[in-house]
Amino acid sequence: MPKKKATAKRAKKAPASPLLFADTQKSADQLYVGGFTVPDAFVSFKKGRNWYAVLNQLEYARALKESRFDEVLQLELWLEMAREKFQRAKVGYAELVATLAEEFEIESFKVPGDFPSSLAFRLVEMGVKLDVCEGTLFPSREKKSEEEIAMIREGNRCSATGIRAAEKAIRQSVIKKGKLYLGGKVLSSERLRGIIEVACLEAGSLSMDTIAAGGDQACDPHCAGHGPLRANELIIVDVFPRVSKTGYHGDMTRTFLKGKANEAQKGIVDAVFKAQQDAIQKVKTGVNGKDVHGSVVETFSRLGYETRRSENGAEGFIHGTGHGLGLEVHEAPRVSIVSNKLKRNAVVTVEPGLYYPGVGGCRIEDVVAVRDEGPELLSKYHYRWQLK
Amino acid sequence: MPKKKATAKRAKKAPASPLLFADTQKSADQLYVGGFTVPDAFVSFKKGRNWYAVLNQLEYARALKESRFDEVLQLELWLEMAREKFQRAKVGYAELVATLAEEFEIESFKVPGDFPSSLAFRLVEMGVKLDVCEGTLFPSREKKSEEEIAMIREGNRCSATGIRAAEKAIRQSVIKKGKLYLGGKVLSSERLRGIIEVACLEAGSLSMDTIAAGGDQACDPHCAGHGPLRANELIIVDVFPRVSKTGYHGDMTRTFLKGKANEAQKGIVDAVFKAQQDAIQKVKTGVNGKDVHGSVVETFSRLGYETRRSENGAEGFIHGTGHGLGLEVHEAPRVSIVSNKLKRNAVVTVEPGLYYPGVGGCRIEDVVAVRDEGPELLSKYHYRWQLK
Repeated sequence: MPKKKATAKRAKKAPASPLLFADTQKSADQLYVGGFTVPDAFVSFKKGRNWYAVLNQLEYARALKESRFDEVLQLELWLEMAREKFQRAKVGYAELVATLAEEFEIESFKVPGDFPSSLAFRLVEMGVKLDVCEGTLFPSREKKSEEEIAMIREGNRCSATGIRAAEKAIRQSVIKKGKLYLGGKVLSSERLRGIIEVACLEAGSLSMDTIAAGGDQACDPHCAGHGPLRANELIIVDVFPRVSKTGYHGDMTRTFLKGKANEAQKGIVDAVFKAQQDAIQKVKTGVNGKDVHGSVVETFSRLGYETRRSENGAEGFIHGTGHGLGLEVHEAPRVSIVSNKLKRNAVVTVEPGLYYPGVGGCRIEDVVAVRDEGPELLSKYHYRWQLK
Repeated sequence: MPKKKATAKRAKKAPASPLLFADTQKSADQLYVGGFTVPDAFVSFKKGRNWYAVLNQLEYARALKESRFDEVLQLELWLEMAREKFQRAKVGYAELVATLAEEFEIESFKVPGDFPSSLAFRLVEMGVKLDVCEGTLFPSREKKSEEEIAMIREGNRCSATGIRAAEKAIRQSVIKKGKLYLGGKVLSSERLRGIIEVACLEAGSLSMDTIAAGGDQACDPHCAGHGPLRANELIIVDVFPRVSKTGYHGDMTRTFLKGKANEAQKGIVDAVFKAQQDAIQKVKTGVNGKDVHGSVVETFSRLGYETRRSENGAEGFIHGTGHGLGLEVHEAPRVSIVSNKLKRNAVVTVEPGLYYPGVGGCRIEDVVAVRDEGPELLSKYHYRWQLK
């Protein structure tokens, strides 16, 4: 039998169709593609040029009005179809996806790294082909559009509003027996956090896990802070709110001190400020994030600030220099020892810090867009830190 | 060859070790087991009676102080061990877990349904045995301890604080050309939401996706509401904050109306109230959630309120009667047509609603603990709804 000329007749292999199963709180991908919030997990997928969402009657009408999906399918109807196809009274999302695959003639799906295992394993058992990505379904999320950059700028306006409220409260506080008091009551981390979060809310954003930590507490960079704030201690204020309307974040940190700073404290604040400003200047399309991080490491080393592992963790510069920012507070790219080249229009934080129990912690953070010409600052707040 | 008496000598098969890889924002399981918040995904697992967390130097010291883990392992050291074991410079979480499995002599892991697919598939490729649960790793989360019930009660105190702030704002508003005004400015859904969220914050909780929707907007039960609130319209206020200190939620809904209600509005509010109160009385250990839901369906049907699918969705009673509440706003068990028997000390919402475009929507929601003697209300707020 003569060999057929296969190339001409071979059916072109269809690319895998993107598939999501998540709510928009937990999955930035789902929020990115649909542009509207849904509190419970739902299926969305792409076939050809169209993105489809499968939503129950509770969400259906709202999805038609508010979402960016090209078409909204009624979950109840599709579950009915799955029941018919599988000749079973009880079907779940695996059967639903298999039914969609058949009806839409989809040969294989591409899912993000955080796609739920239970559904993934059941689909594979049923013979549905899955291509599992390492991370997001949309690596393009790393490069922001001008519209997204404007939304992140807005997020940082909210951050700055929170930091301003914190500065004002610390500034207006009075010192009694070493503790800060505002309006006759102790100014605690919890209370300062409340002041910041109310200010963010009023600015149109939700600030979660806000950090307002003083003294040695701030040496655990993710410690939110608790108890009375004290005079003559460095207070780290890190505010990363999500703008309610868009879902995009801001992320800024300033370090304050009420009272009188000692030489050790002045030393680390000066070093962090120097390291941060120098690192920001390094940010540019095509520069490796590793080198931006390296600039910070080099500054600290030159100024004599060592990083070492201690019995209870570590001290010095104990985290990366920054991370991508967008629909998630932490997203690609990283700015650390494991970075790659920074892409045009990526948005990253630059936030070196030094942490020495006994002296305290200092972190200064701004957000920049990566441009061909260099860094474009998306956050703005002064750097004065000693509050009388 | 004589048949060996196998049972005596057969090594007892070790039960699969629970394994998590998640941050505590997205995974209630991770928060449940560790009792402290971590913003980035990390590995935790159980071997024997001990729960271990593997954390980087950024979280290590805080975990020792704040978490419930029996032991905290240093991520950096374990990555180093994984590099040695695999003789590779670059290793990831799959290699880390495989190394842990070897060192801790773990034969197989049990992971929750939302365990990330990318890690699960890589582990399976590497020969690590995984048992994937359908949902949570802790079905026992469904039955709350008395301590958890107290935390949910506290969550509802926060909900009530938010609803009280909303009622006060609506009550104090004045009507001009059909719209509500407070302090000379339009009282919009957005503004009312802000008032509620600030009240929740001051009460020690974070209220996200708060619903304050009037008129036909409220007929999409998950529509948050936007634009001016109007006189003579039903306004649904649904507040489900997370107590910042504990992570547990409250969840309450009340429906208000400023001005004068018409007969159709009075009718649906009366019907929803009747259905809700009757359904609450049905809640008891061993009762099927289906029957609690059935009681609502029956009340509405008896009073002549039909549920039907329409072109743009559906109208009438278009959602389930309730859901479990705890570290997640929506968790097991459901109270709907697909429910099972309610377990002792489960905590559920009871929240029937009626939605008719043109008339508006009404939902009334409280939270009850399932007890042997019947329902124990964990939320408390009056049901007066017509505000002059």
